Amino acid sequence: IANRAQGFSNRGMTLEEDINAANTYYRDMDKAVIHKKPTPIQVVNVHYPKRSAAVITEGYFKQPSTTDYNGIYRGRHIDFEAKETKNKTRFPLANIHEHQIRHMKSIAKQGAVCFLIIRFSAYEETYYMPAEVLFRYWDAQFNGGKKSIRYETIVKEGYLVPFHYQARVNYLAVIDKLYF
Amino acid sequence: IANRAQGFSNRGMTLEEDINAANTYYRDMDKAVIHKKPTPIQVVNVHYPKRSAAVITEGYFKQPSTTDYNGIYRGRHIDFEAKETKNKTRFPLANIHEHQIRHMKSIAKQGAVCFLIIRFSAYEETYYMPAEVLFRYWDAQFNGGKKSIRYETIVKEGYLVPFHYQARVNYLAVIDKLYF
Ligand SMILES: [Mg+2]
Ligand SMILES: [Mg+2]
Repeated sequence: IANRAQGFSNRGMTLEEDINAANTYYRDMDKAVIHKKPTPIQVVNVHYPKRSAAVITEGYFKQPSTTDYNGIYRGRHIDFEAKETKNKTRFPLANIHEHQIRHMKSIAKQGAVCFLIIRFSAYEETYYMPAEVLFRYWDAQFNGGKKSIRYETIVKEGYLVPFHYQARVNYLAVIDKLYF
Repeated sequence: IANRAQGFSNRGMTLEEDINAANTYYRDMDKAVIHKKPTPIQVVNVHYPKRSAAVITEGYFKQPSTTDYNGIYRGRHIDFEAKETKNKTRFPLANIHEHQIRHMKSIAKQGAVCFLIIRFSAYEETYYMPAEVLFRYWDAQFNGGKKSIRYETIVKEGYLVPFHYQARVNYLAVIDKLYF
């Protein structure tokens, strides 16, 4: 029933839009301070017109070396990556970059609350997957394991993120259950 | 003597270069994971040439709504802003934006280790100023207080950041003293 409700209320919003809405709501309520990191851009040429703002006339998107979101909640450092897939049966690990995994392993070692948010858009279901679970499947792919994680595995080893009218992917509810 | 040593070894590096070097060293040593946030850029036009990378042909620098650096150290969320001044007698509060103070107050409430790094380039001295001290002077300016913080005050209420050959502004040493 929760999934149905989520699917119905949330039609057409991207995962990023939903997470940004949740973060804005969390900040407005003084619940948590979590931001999307800006996309790193290599600025090559800037034009400085008189009397108006500098214009970047040549720039390139750089590969992010970390994850999409970080911040703080109840004293804990929060850091996560979000991925949406149209795949109905599995989440391909190729969606994650190796340097992102390296980053997640480093911050997990420092004591961060680290996770992956995966949305199966076909089902309009969003899952919270603890970094440790992700690391297990990630590492296994280099030892004869699969290059993807099955949907059923994610349902079993992850946590369905509840829909909330304002915090549209209410991932802090999962963190509350797991950490507090 | 510490200041002299710092001045000598560090000539010509900007504060940002020094902090980036420190962060790289901390990450390489597995001591902490702290990054500079990318500069937020509003992308207006992108050209997609065949067979090569997308080129941003029109973009604008946006005002950052948070601070420059954040990350995690020994389980604590770290968040700070860095400012360099040529002024020899005081640090003008106009160097900080109001929304940055708002951000710092929100994360301080969540339990972050939050501070300002101020470099007086004339003296080649770098100070760690706890956010609470900054907030006190910031708020006071709206109640008849000064629009700047005197150099002597920063020396007294802040902490000289020691020079370290690889972590050129070794601010974790100050955090160790204050928090651990
Ligand atoms: Mg992403
Ligand atoms: Mg700055």
